[in-house]
Amino acid sequence: MKKGPCIKEFNITPIAITDPPLLNAAGLHAPYALRIVVELVTDDNISGISEIPGTVEIEQALHECKHLIIGQDPFQTNKINDILTAYFGTDSSADRGLFPWDSRKLVHIFSALEVACLDIVGKIVNRPVVDLLGGKRRERVPFAAYLFYKYEGAGGELAFDTDPNATGWAAARQKSALNPDEIVKQAKAMCKEFGFQSIKLKGGVFEPRQEVDAILALREAFGETMPLRLDPNALWTVETSIKYGLEMEGILEYLEDPCRGQENMALVRKALRTPLATNMCTTSFSDIPNSVKVGSEDIILSDHHFWGGLRESMNLTGICQTFGRDLSMHSNSHLGISLAAMVHLGAAIPNFRYALDTHYPWQSDEVITQGRFTFEEGSVAVPEGPGLGVELDKAALAKLHQNYLACGLTKRDDQVEMRKVIPDWEFKQTRW
Amino acid sequence: MKKGPCIKEFNITPIAITDPPLLNAAGLHAPYALRIVVELVTDDNISGISEIPGTVEIEQALHECKHLIIGQDPFQTNKINDILTAYFGTDSSADRGLFPWDSRKLVHIFSALEVACLDIVGKIVNRPVVDLLGGKRRERVPFAAYLFYKYEGAGGELAFDTDPNATGWAAARQKSALNPDEIVKQAKAMCKEFGFQSIKLKGGVFEPRQEVDAILALREAFGETMPLRLDPNALWTVETSIKYGLEMEGILEYLEDPCRGQENMALVRKALRTPLATNMCTTSFSDIPNSVKVGSEDIILSDHHFWGGLRESMNLTGICQTFGRDLSMHSNSHLGISLAAMVHLGAAIPNFRYALDTHYPWQSDEVITQGRFTFEEGSVAVPEGPGLGVELDKAALAKLHQNYLACGLTKRDDQVEMRKVIPDWEFKQTRW
Repeated sequence: MKKGPCIKEFNITPIAITDPPLLNAAGLHAPYALRIVVELVTDDNISGISEIPGTVEIEQALHECKHLIIGQDPFQTNKINDILTAYFGTDSSADRGLFPWDSRKLVHIFSALEVACLDIVGKIVNRPVVDLLGGKRRERVPFAAYLFYKYEGAGGELAFDTDPNATGWAAARQKSALNPDEIVKQAKAMCKEFGFQSIKLKGGVFEPRQEVDAILALREAFGETMPLRLDPNALWTVETSIKYGLEMEGILEYLEDPCRGQENMALVRKALRTPLATNMCTTSFSDIPNSVKVGSEDIILSDHHFWGGLRESMNLTGICQTFGRDLSMHSNSHLGISLAAMVHLGAAIPNFRYALDTHYPWQSDEVITQGRFTFEEGSVAVPEGPGLGVELDKAALAKLHQNYLACGLTKRDDQVEMRKVIPDWEFKQTRW
Repeated sequence: MKKGPCIKEFNITPIAITDPPLLNAAGLHAPYALRIVVELVTDDNISGISEIPGTVEIEQALHECKHLIIGQDPFQTNKINDILTAYFGTDSSADRGLFPWDSRKLVHIFSALEVACLDIVGKIVNRPVVDLLGGKRRERVPFAAYLFYKYEGAGGELAFDTDPNATGWAAARQKSALNPDEIVKQAKAMCKEFGFQSIKLKGGVFEPRQEVDAILALREAFGETMPLRLDPNALWTVETSIKYGLEMEGILEYLEDPCRGQENMALVRKALRTPLATNMCTTSFSDIPNSVKVGSEDIILSDHHFWGGLRESMNLTGICQTFGRDLSMHSNSHLGISLAAMVHLGAAIPNFRYALDTHYPWQSDEVITQGRFTFEEGSVAVPEGPGLGVELDKAALAKLHQNYLACGLTKRDDQVEMRKVIPDWEFKQTRW
């Protein structure tokens, strides 16, 4: 039997993509979001790519493990996982951090390598990545509209400013959204452009009354058939979560991370009929036993960047099925490589009940040759090409890398950005 | 991208393989064990094979679903699983039955199809099946010596008789083993031939004192460095399990299914330091939540024929890792196709601590062109060829199918066989 190919190149490119001034529990999105694009190239010149959230620390760690990966066979992802685990050590739950995003090292790095390896394997065997996960259970993967409170502006070069020539969603997404009316306008423009069939509001920004009023306004505007979700990003107390949770009973499809910690989530869950979702209290396999013990959520919002890749996400799906949980997906600001990976995974999982999150409508850059993905009725077709089905646009990559060098950001810090607007603003683990 | 191949042939061949008169909790092995060999052939004439335990009922169910499988793409195992689940319905825990083996329908049938599909996929992509599970974590997979109380005889044509010309293990395995001395002799002959580094005694045959004495005799004969296991197949009460469990503390590597049911197992587990293993109380994903709740075992002895194939077994591995359980493997009388699948899976799983079970030394037939697998120091090398790395020997298959037709057996019924020796023998769920 033919010996496997081996990885001869491991290219690591930090990029900065324009990101509007979106508000969230941790503060304010900077004008650029950082991502890292990884490209692995085999000795027979097959290239596999992936995209993960970017920080200088993760970038350095990728460089650090390069020598361990060069020469490996991209089919041997178990071995690569073991090598990285031995080198970096297993992440602890504490490494995740308190913010809505995840700061663990090993899961990010292995995710970057595994997705790029599966892209290579898919190309070698002339099959889409979804077929490496057992094959498609659906042709299209549904996403939800992801609404944000935001300041005026479009991010990037246009930060805190607007493009007067934009039309449609490109115009609408530049506008401020700081009250229920503006949130409804944002939702209408986004749903018109992308056809989303469900809506999430990123909360944890204003006091709960105002955010609940925005949900009620969305209900009024879209009617009973549009599933609604609210994500206060763990800033509410248990009492607040129950109080407003009860008010929104029958209106929310799910309530996401109203409060912090599995035990608190479990208290809220006992008090509500509305399902609870999380990407903050149950975020790794080591969190699962206590999640099962206390019953902290109904839906795990997985993220293959944080759970260690696509096969581990399939394992998580199995755990969710076994323990009567649903699985949907979490998102950060991202481009089409991450979206492609999410779509392949989303097409393979069983019991798909909740449209996935994506920040994609908020970005305008792209790093793949096919350009921006299109959504129809809120869903994305599984890319047909072999592997991920997307190819790296080297010129776009170079430009976005220049943005990275120019913007001077080294990690996501929404508090720093927020203080540019509100100087004494401070992140709080629990606010209301 | 090239469209996938499709399955054009689905061949189902029940076979009977010679099996010695082995004693166990359910009675006595018949002179033949029944297996079913499944062969799928694609439209471009790539053949994939698998082997599962055989009953007329399973054979009929395979024929029944043939029309659903013909025309499917072997890469689309998720879809095939969904089709079969829709057709047959999900197995219930009760469908498993009370015997040491498993009587569920869907898991057997999907396992047969998934393994054959992965064999095809491996051949198409020119990779061993283990690479479809993320690749090898070890080059060789260790197995344990599997000792049985038995009557004189070698099974098959030679049932209840011996071959006077046999030598070595072939001679030793014909001998009776009905007391500690004979068990030690069996162990020595088997370990000499196969190099096994750990030993399991199938118990649940004689009253506990005698079986514990056999363990003590093995300890005496092999010393402290040889890990020992005893499997009373759930026939002991909780009290008996604790009493003899305490006596064997520090002597057993694990105690397997001393008593019946997760709650009883949990009681025994609390009373002992010796790890408990099971293939009887936690045997499906639907059993996992209560296993976690009550803490019924330390080690799940999986069996890809009973857990729905190789990818589901990888999911089970993830669950075991997540909940601090170990995973090893259960066996029934089988040939080299099943062994090959076990070895590919065994090479991929993380945290391999316990050598796997196999009945393979008790069989002498084979259905693959390479002939019988060889063991070195108790372990089997991962087959190198693409797919499972074994090819169907059509002449051997035909002969074993003739055995099936001639022997008249339609399912495994160890009580019927036992009554040929002890007319009033009766299976009991709990005996001592």
